[in-house]
Amino acid sequence: MELSHIEHLGIAVKSLETAIPYYEEILGLKCYAIEEVKDQKVKTAFFKIGQTKIELLESTDPEGTISKFIEKKGEGIHHIAFSVKDGVQNALCELEGKGIKLIDKAPRKGAEGLDIAFLHPKSTIGVLTELCENPNEK
Amino acid sequence: MELSHIEHLGIAVKSLETAIPYYEEILGLKCYAIEEVKDQKVKTAFFKIGQTKIELLESTDPEGTISKFIEKKGEGIHHIAFSVKDGVQNALCELEGKGIKLIDKAPRKGAEGLDIAFLHPKSTIGVLTELCENPNEK
Repeated sequence: MELSHIEHLGIAVKSLETAIPYYEEILGLKCYAIEEVKDQKVKTAFFKIGQTKIELLESTDPEGTISKFIEKKGEGIHHIAFSVKDGVQNALCELEGKGIKLIDKAPRKGAEGLDIAFLHPKSTIGVLTELCENPNEK
Repeated sequence: MELSHIEHLGIAVKSLETAIPYYEEILGLKCYAIEEVKDQKVKTAFFKIGQTKIELLESTDPEGTISKFIEKKGEGIHHIAFSVKDGVQNALCELEGKGIKLIDKAPRKGAEGLDIAFLHPKSTIGVLTELCENPNEK
């Protein structure tokens, strides 16, 4: 498995309406897209800084994972997503062979049409980790 | 203030001895430096992925901030560090003028000789945020 860069950081926020002005007016980044990802029960806002996107995540459901994360740990960085070079499926096979616990055994579609899969933080020293690949850049 | 990229991510771990093999053997990154930062009471290990470094942080003191972070939230991403273009001091002045609470009112020396300063997570929607600049690249 070869990782090329940090594709994005997922940051859990209570409210996009409050968070977007902080990222735009204080940090000087530009929100270029807002997208709802229904199966993850989140509304997301995207910013770009260098090679990496910042993906703000607001829960659309009090029972969703982002609501629960904020309840337990407060607002903050929720996950790190690495861009893989040779396909998410290949990476998952390799990692499972090395004993890594997977949340997704096969890639699924994430925000922006990426192929994504999550690894379990119990296997990743506490960091919820996503692998992703843009199918249009293969 | 202009941010150019994510300079590094600080990740709190209980043990570098356990964490380094995960980053090297599972993620395929290479640890290129280990450094103790005495005034922050941490031992750090550095990896590079694309434009960004991953800085693993192991506490050297049970009363240190990393020990306390792990006690409260568990191992995981501790802070995000943005590279600023026009000097950390200028950025701090601008941010303070906009009402952002600062942990450091003036830049200090961090790992790898960078000029660094932290913003308070109460002002940054829950994300402990560091600004940094390499004085040799000014």
